[in-house]
Amino acid sequence: MNDAEVQILTEREPGEVGLVRWEDFHSRTPFTFDCGESIPEFTLRYETYGRLNRTRDNAILICHALSGDHHCAGVHSLNDRKPGWWNNFIGPGKAVDTNRYFVICSNCIGGCQGSTGPSSTDPRSGEPYNLRFPMLTIRDMVRTQHRLVRDHLDLPRLFAVIGGSMGGMQVLQWAIEYPEYVHKIIPLATTGRQNAQSIAFDEVGRFAIMRDSEWKNGDYDPGAGPNVGLAVARMMAHITYLSDQGLEEKFGRSRKAGPGRTFFEPEFNVESYLRHQGASFINRFDANTYLYFTKALNRFDLYAPDGSLEDSMRQIRAGALVVGFTSDWLFPPAQNRDLVHALLRCGKTASYAELGMTLGHDSFLVHAPDLYRLISTFLAS
Amino acid sequence: MNDAEVQILTEREPGEVGLVRWEDFHSRTPFTFDCGESIPEFTLRYETYGRLNRTRDNAILICHALSGDHHCAGVHSLNDRKPGWWNNFIGPGKAVDTNRYFVICSNCIGGCQGSTGPSSTDPRSGEPYNLRFPMLTIRDMVRTQHRLVRDHLDLPRLFAVIGGSMGGMQVLQWAIEYPEYVHKIIPLATTGRQNAQSIAFDEVGRFAIMRDSEWKNGDYDPGAGPNVGLAVARMMAHITYLSDQGLEEKFGRSRKAGPGRTFFEPEFNVESYLRHQGASFINRFDANTYLYFTKALNRFDLYAPDGSLEDSMRQIRAGALVVGFTSDWLFPPAQNRDLVHALLRCGKTASYAELGMTLGHDSFLVHAPDLYRLISTFLAS
Repeated sequence: MNDAEVQILTEREPGEVGLVRWEDFHSRTPFTFDCGESIPEFTLRYETYGRLNRTRDNAILICHALSGDHHCAGVHSLNDRKPGWWNNFIGPGKAVDTNRYFVICSNCIGGCQGSTGPSSTDPRSGEPYNLRFPMLTIRDMVRTQHRLVRDHLDLPRLFAVIGGSMGGMQVLQWAIEYPEYVHKIIPLATTGRQNAQSIAFDEVGRFAIMRDSEWKNGDYDPGAGPNVGLAVARMMAHITYLSDQGLEEKFGRSRKAGPGRTFFEPEFNVESYLRHQGASFINRFDANTYLYFTKALNRFDLYAPDGSLEDSMRQIRAGALVVGFTSDWLFPPAQNRDLVHALLRCGKTASYAELGMTLGHDSFLVHAPDLYRLISTFLAS
Repeated sequence: MNDAEVQILTEREPGEVGLVRWEDFHSRTPFTFDCGESIPEFTLRYETYGRLNRTRDNAILICHALSGDHHCAGVHSLNDRKPGWWNNFIGPGKAVDTNRYFVICSNCIGGCQGSTGPSSTDPRSGEPYNLRFPMLTIRDMVRTQHRLVRDHLDLPRLFAVIGGSMGGMQVLQWAIEYPEYVHKIIPLATTGRQNAQSIAFDEVGRFAIMRDSEWKNGDYDPGAGPNVGLAVARMMAHITYLSDQGLEEKFGRSRKAGPGRTFFEPEFNVESYLRHQGASFINRFDANTYLYFTKALNRFDLYAPDGSLEDSMRQIRAGALVVGFTSDWLFPPAQNRDLVHALLRCGKTASYAELGMTLGHDSFLVHAPDLYRLISTFLAS
């Protein structure tokens, strides 16, 4: 097979980014959070896929959601059971085409997958930050990412910033904070501010964590912690990421087969599924990060006191494709539409796509050729 | 004022049932649950309002929901801050008019407000039942109520059975189990079976309770118990009883006033509201009852394996008014409609009313003149 044939094959059949490895960006300059507190240095763990072009203007930043991380495509070893969380979107010939774009994703500040967060050691005390970690905002996430892409990776600008849910909030904040730096944005399944119901669910999760006797005011030992509270928070939140219809199609009232169950142990398959979600989450996520991230989500608010979005949207220069999902009841379509309407009222270039997918909020993560096409076309346009 | 004037006033302006007191029905005959296990005796605590007529055929049974009890109207003392849970529906001149009807409501078997349940003493062992209490079904609730109204109160039949949510399931089961005994039924905001999403929420609540270290396999001391787990279960469930729009109208993103809050303590008013719901619930509800009741809810299923309701509905003789609420996403309107469609396909007398109220599942509890009129007219027709 000659090079031309390889090229044709790659363009026709989406490929995999394959083996990837993360890198760490150590920022040695103090960072001052929106709350006014500072930390002397921080680390952002990140991954990149594809190649930067000579003009250094083909970079796309992916922003992750609450439970995500920097590992959004490829595998870390050939034995990995699961690839990165957006592997279906990112790769050679995929919606975010690594043959064309240089793709970056970093674990957010405050996170627990290698970036500096509550579980990291405060170099000033030699102790973990835990609740001494400064209160965090979406804007803090964006400003630390900016150091990574501008100062460390030396990118003159970002071709695009893409993300869903909490990632979508970062996308919006990027376009507001660094209007000249961002060419295109694709916020998915997101909002300019959460409604009371979403805040309420997050509060129940935080309550479950903080009232778990193992939480110890945030000073639990590494490896220990409020596992029950964190599992409860995750199980509940996971229901809100899906939908009535999605759960019905996947599980309905189907029951577990096999040996007799004990009294109140899982009987319906949806119960076992949720327990599995809870159990696997506590193995990979830090409870304090969960508190900080949900609080950042709840406080994010692009609206002016009079209920208008225009003051925030006016400064945006990037072209926007906002994507909502009909079955998303956590960040409902109306909240996504609101963003586009405000952008249009400000004379910006913005499109809205509402996809009729049944899986709820998590629709932005699943196999969706319509969505792939929307994204690749918008990026290429 | 003479008697005639008083009478006119009572008919024009709804009055209050006023001071009421509960009574206990002690059934000394063993009761065998659907699961095959028996208890040697049981108590049902109940209240009545209004007067039984000479022909003893004006009795209406009210069935309570998961967190309800026998106290649905009036006050226990003149200092009571709150009257019974359906006081707005029940009273002289109200939707369920105690000038015309003799109204009965009992705390369900398995409950924790005076009726025999997990926290009661097993007379055979002298110890609390706790998890030795037999697994419970909605049908068990109905069959024990039947002893109360037929054997103890000596009623030849019930003029009507009314209830919402878990109460609505009992209403349906009453009409199925004792078709000759029930003249009219009004199930509100209910279902012939729960969907996967509702089961999922209940499972998270049970998980929170059973993984609370204070649960001790159900053998916690009276006065102690899995208070964190029960509060979490209640807070989460309470969100599902309301609606996006209802919460938005009541709270939106309004914040607490007053002195500075600690780190992750309630900041938005909706958070304080939920914490209050959790805190007050643990003072009045037993965690094991919560497990038994939610399991009974989850297992309730009037549908045949082929997905049809007709086999269950065919035996019903009572005229039915089924009421659904557009904003109810826990037991959505479609599930209520399904019941009526099946009744109509079986040639039964059934009507469906879907009310456009915004408060979600709990709409059946709130001030609603349209609903009052529907119920009083259906009862009088």
